[in-house]
Amino acid sequence: MELLLLIVALAVILAVSYAAFNFLSVKRMEEGTDRMKEIAEAIRIGANAFIRYEYKIVGIIGAVIAVILGVLISWQTGVAFVIGAVMSATAGWVGMKIATYANVRVANSARETGDLGKTLKVAFKGGSVMGLCVAGFALFGVLIVVLLFGMALGQISDVANGTVQHGLIFPALETGFTMTLSGYALGCSVIALFNRVGGGIYTKAADMGADLVGKTEAHIPEDDPRNPATIADNVGDNVGDVAGLGSDLLESFVGAMLSGVILGCEMCVKQIVSGELLNILLLFPLIFAGVGLIGCVIGIAYLLLKKKLSDQVHRELNIATWISAGVAIVGSFLLSFFMFQNADAEALKVIGFKLGNFSPWVAAIFGIATGIIIGMISEYYTSYDFKPTKNIAGASKEGSALTITQGLATGMISCMAPVIVLAVAIFGSFAVAGMYGISCAALGMLSFVAATVSVDTYGPISDNAGGIAEMSELGKEVRAITDKLDSVGNTTAAIGKGFAIGSAALAALSMMTSYLFAFMGDINMVQNWMDSLVLNVMQPLTLCGALVGAALPYMFSGMLIEAVAKAARKMVEEVRRQFNEIKGILTGEAKPDYKTCIEISSQGSLKEMRVPCIIAIAIPVVSGFIFGAQFVGGILIGATVSAIMLAIFCGNSGGAWDNAKKYIESGGVEGHGKGSSAHDASVVGDTVGDPLKDTVGPSLDILIKIMSTISLVAVVIFSEYNLFSLLGL
Amino acid sequence: MELLLLIVALAVILAVSYAAFNFLSVKRMEEGTDRMKEIAEAIRIGANAFIRYEYKIVGIIGAVIAVILGVLISWQTGVAFVIGAVMSATAGWVGMKIATYANVRVANSARETGDLGKTLKVAFKGGSVMGLCVAGFALFGVLIVVLLFGMALGQISDVANGTVQHGLIFPALETGFTMTLSGYALGCSVIALFNRVGGGIYTKAADMGADLVGKTEAHIPEDDPRNPATIADNVGDNVGDVAGLGSDLLESFVGAMLSGVILGCEMCVKQIVSGELLNILLLFPLIFAGVGLIGCVIGIAYLLLKKKLSDQVHRELNIATWISAGVAIVGSFLLSFFMFQNADAEALKVIGFKLGNFSPWVAAIFGIATGIIIGMISEYYTSYDFKPTKNIAGASKEGSALTITQGLATGMISCMAPVIVLAVAIFGSFAVAGMYGISCAALGMLSFVAATVSVDTYGPISDNAGGIAEMSELGKEVRAITDKLDSVGNTTAAIGKGFAIGSAALAALSMMTSYLFAFMGDINMVQNWMDSLVLNVMQPLTLCGALVGAALPYMFSGMLIEAVAKAARKMVEEVRRQFNEIKGILTGEAKPDYKTCIEISSQGSLKEMRVPCIIAIAIPVVSGFIFGAQFVGGILIGATVSAIMLAIFCGNSGGAWDNAKKYIESGGVEGHGKGSSAHDASVVGDTVGDPLKDTVGPSLDILIKIMSTISLVAVVIFSEYNLFSLLGL
Repeated sequence: MELLLLIVALAVILAVSYAAFNFLSVKRMEEGTDRMKEIAEAIRIGANAFIRYEYKIVGIIGAVIAVILGVLISWQTGVAFVIGAVMSATAGWVGMKIATYANVRVANSARETGDLGKTLKVAFKGGSVMGLCVAGFALFGVLIVVLLFGMALGQISDVANGTVQHGLIFPALETGFTMTLSGYALGCSVIALFNRVGGGIYTKAADMGADLVGKTEAHIPEDDPRNPATIADNVGDNVGDVAGLGSDLLESFVGAMLSGVILGCEMCVKQIVSGELLNILLLFPLIFAGVGLIGCVIGIAYLLLKKKLSDQVHRELNIATWISAGVAIVGSFLLSFFMFQNADAEALKVIGFKLGNFSPWVAAIFGIATGIIIGMISEYYTSYDFKPTKNIAGASKEGSALTITQGLATGMISCMAPVIVLAVAIFGSFAVAGMYGISCAALGMLSFVAATVSVDTYGPISDNAGGIAEMSELGKEVRAITDKLDSVGNTTAAIGKGFAIGSAALAALSMMTSYLFAFMGDINMVQNWMDSLVLNVMQPLTLCGALVGAALPYMFSGMLIEAVAKAARKMVEEVRRQFNEIKGILTGEAKPDYKTCIEISSQGSLKEMRVPCIIAIAIPVVSGFIFGAQFVGGILIGATVSAIMLAIFCGNSGGAWDNAKKYIESGGVEGHGKGSSAHDASVVGDTVGDPLKDTVGPSLDILIKIMSTISLVAVVIFSEYNLFSLLGL
Repeated sequence: MELLLLIVALAVILAVSYAAFNFLSVKRMEEGTDRMKEIAEAIRIGANAFIRYEYKIVGIIGAVIAVILGVLISWQTGVAFVIGAVMSATAGWVGMKIATYANVRVANSARETGDLGKTLKVAFKGGSVMGLCVAGFALFGVLIVVLLFGMALGQISDVANGTVQHGLIFPALETGFTMTLSGYALGCSVIALFNRVGGGIYTKAADMGADLVGKTEAHIPEDDPRNPATIADNVGDNVGDVAGLGSDLLESFVGAMLSGVILGCEMCVKQIVSGELLNILLLFPLIFAGVGLIGCVIGIAYLLLKKKLSDQVHRELNIATWISAGVAIVGSFLLSFFMFQNADAEALKVIGFKLGNFSPWVAAIFGIATGIIIGMISEYYTSYDFKPTKNIAGASKEGSALTITQGLATGMISCMAPVIVLAVAIFGSFAVAGMYGISCAALGMLSFVAATVSVDTYGPISDNAGGIAEMSELGKEVRAITDKLDSVGNTTAAIGKGFAIGSAALAALSMMTSYLFAFMGDINMVQNWMDSLVLNVMQPLTLCGALVGAALPYMFSGMLIEAVAKAARKMVEEVRRQFNEIKGILTGEAKPDYKTCIEISSQGSLKEMRVPCIIAIAIPVVSGFIFGAQFVGGILIGATVSAIMLAIFCGNSGGAWDNAKKYIESGGVEGHGKGSSAHDASVVGDTVGDPLKDTVGPSLDILIKIMSTISLVAVVIFSEYNLFSLLGL
């Protein structure tokens, strides 16, 4: 059975080398005119500088956490944390690199070939580097951790169960392989949090700042070279939408994969499953992920090797995704069937497998279906082909107040449908495969993550290419191609968000089960053991935790929005200053000072990201040491439920405002086109929605996962040592 | 002991007769000039017409519910429901009546006397009618229900425990006095829901409609007689802020009072408390409420009988409130001490009374303190004396997008502090007096409700008086007095909101405990019985319920906002039409058609209120019959937690936007006064915030209570008969 891990190794090698090949092949292409080179270089330098600064800060914080983990929990946990952090940081960095190379080459391809299909190929090749790296590095890290600390895989159950790890401070504390795995997941999460939050603040501060003065006051179009904030805006796409997205989805992928593995280990520790069965439960997610990655390599290669791509961009991308997903679905069917074939039927029943060896596969299908349906629901609420967004555009005729009101209403109403789908997935995957099924569903969603990330990254690359084309004054035909690519990117992004929030919710819930395992007493094996896993919200301490937990995502979101607004206002002031002081900017006679704007965005975001991130990491731990594990359990469930709603609300209202503006620009509202007062109102909606959908929404996805992961790591200590139990309360 | 009920009867008689006296004394005052009479009559006619229509619809829905309750549960429950509905409807109606009499008389007092103190007295006298009626009718209804169905009070435990009631359809179903009480609470809730939602949509549709065209397009001030929507706006204050508020707080008061009583009955049914102790547990909340009401009569009389009121309006009102609260605090101390004095110490320990006979009093103090602190926090986040609102005003310099963004951020961040206070109250009141303590805390907050409602009602009366003064062109001195009264009303409203959300949360949680009692099996008296009360959120069905429940307040809020926006847009179109078609409106030469605007608001709100209200009532019941009691338990906790956050968020961001605008108008932002672009931006914020703070926020308070009440009523059926258990899932 362990030999199946070779599939994982193969997948990693295949993915990373294909990524390297694509990287070099993109880099070898022509950059175009001098003006284009100049702009691309400015973007590249800005992005590099930001990531360097950011990684310095994150490196320090990460080192502190690693040392704390090593000292308090076990050195293995600390090392695994570092491996996770390095994997996540590398994926983000590679993605940012390739995006800053690909953007100008996409523009140049559009300029030279004038062919939509060929240009799509360049953009997608760039995106594929990111997609393959995300999944490849994630799996690579897992493989290292498993081989390094799981050691002889035949005895992996001994590692979970027997081989005891010790921290330095609490020698009585005994932890096992679970902690090491959690440490790895936490490493990925921490980087993802900082990348998402830092990048999210950067990109939206620049974007809002550029729009607020450029569009609203000076009435110059987006990406106009006369706008001093425009390069910062393009840098933002690379550090926020690319690097942020990359480490975000790497973290989701790892979370989905390991939540099942960790749960298996916990069940083994509690002697619910035997070592033999654990072996299967542990290997299945890893190999499933490996098979999915191979599927993605095939899907991506299909698109890149195809002779001639049609003009139907969305369809071409869909085919690549569907090939990847198809391989994952068929592969997981075979894996589920064969891996669990010889497992003891009774043992499977005990952990809730109702359909025998098919159970994990059916659960995974529930997950995949849920991701797609939630994506479709997001599209319904945010695309201007449907009523909700059209209504927002219509409301803009009456001024910006009604644009905002209508958008808020749409976002709020949009919470119900995806949540019902999610509830069905939870109930269904649990019904067929118990708690393990929920993590299978999460992994199902993310098994073809390399393909979805490739598609998601191609979007901002095309967006950037459009910016470069505009700034280099490349003419309408070029812009038409990049615009077309960009608009498809917006649709795929909506679907990507469905996967992100759905998988985050499922992974977090699965982690919470492990959390409960970690501090509960003996399992009552006479009755259904799952009934022993209790988080009783009517217990006052848990209830209080749930209330405070539910307020946390609000506070976190509010702080992020405020951070964006603060940085954006500084940007506005700077842009206004330049318009006033540098004569001839608006006539194109003088060049604006792009660099100062980039610095404002960098400094603003690096300064503002720290407090909310540290709060997110610290609150579960600190409150655990004061109030104990029941309270933190409440925090986790409260925060998860509350964050899911807020994330959907923010994502959908933001997306709907964005597209309502585009609908007006495309002439959808009769008599109120570009430049009308209705258009101005819709720009206000778009500006308000920007930080909601691109900073707050994605950060909330990470928040719930990082909170459950860090609680899982810390609970072994604070369930024993906390102020409340010391005081005898 | 039962003789103490005479205190309640005395309080009711005292309060209602004092209210009648004040009503007549206000009505006897002079109305002023012919123009004033004319305007006041138009407002009165509009308000009367709306309430009549609304009560027709509510009457039909209420009758249907009453019949269903009578047939399915017991005739007693049906009758109690009707009594509750009549009490709530009457309170709303009386409040609306007196407000439409008092408004013009306040304006006239300002005109004739030019004295702030004297005018305050008139306004407060009007408000006091509402305050006294709310508490008086609530207690009157409870008294009727207790005397009618509780019968011989010495045997009240037999009624809870022994005397069995039957429905017609499920003859096996056995219910007791608990159901009757729940039916009464439900009657109050249903009316409150419709009054709040219907009135909330009415008032904000008119307000937004008037502002959107008047302030933003035609640049005429608020309450200008040239604005056709202005009378509708003033009608709205009376049906939304007065009638809606009245039945809302009546419902809160009843909920807080009965949640403890119902819990006591359930504990008696489960044989946790003896009949003797139940007697005390049952009487304590009623008599506490009665004493509180007597305190309010004293507090109100103090203000009204005082020879000369100072110009410090806020201080005068505070003294009245503090006298009322002081009597309630001292009275409840004595009640707690003497009523529980002879109770068996062991029996008190079993229900979690850690401080013996002082326990309920300490819990009540926790509640009172919490209400005040939450109010102070709301004030911090929404008053322009503090940083958050000043920041919003400052952000308005950069345009409306940043006004909105900053307001959203403020609202989100503002959730944490009040929730922590609430958590402390829950933990503290539970620690001293168990689950019963939580309901004591809720009742503590609302024990002097008559005083707070009097103060809360005086606000919209003064607001209306200002409107009438403006429309009758009464001159600046008059307007200065009404403005002063109005602005104090805004501050007191913020504190009132703290009490509303806090008490709603506590009452709902207390009801949920009773809900768990109603379908759980036997209590394990060997260990702590409270540990048997389990709502396990890790149970998949409960978890799914919690997710769907958390989405419910969002959907409900979104629908309300959309309803307001829809009605407001119709109003905007009508106002524009009149400006275009009726020549000479803006020059004051022609009279606008006020009546059509009133009709638009009426029809819009009556049409739009039905769906969200029916959804709120139906979802817990319908899903209970499909998925059973565990799922509904999840819905209740999910909805409660989620609604608390949304209500705080909506209330505070709305309030902050409102005051940011006022701050700019008062010249707080240097160089950006009234009429500047910053002011325009702040008006956008105010308009967006209006439905959030005045329609959504208060409606959410009711939502969580009505859901827990209706679930409590229906659970006796659906815990036995539901699709999932029939299918064996």
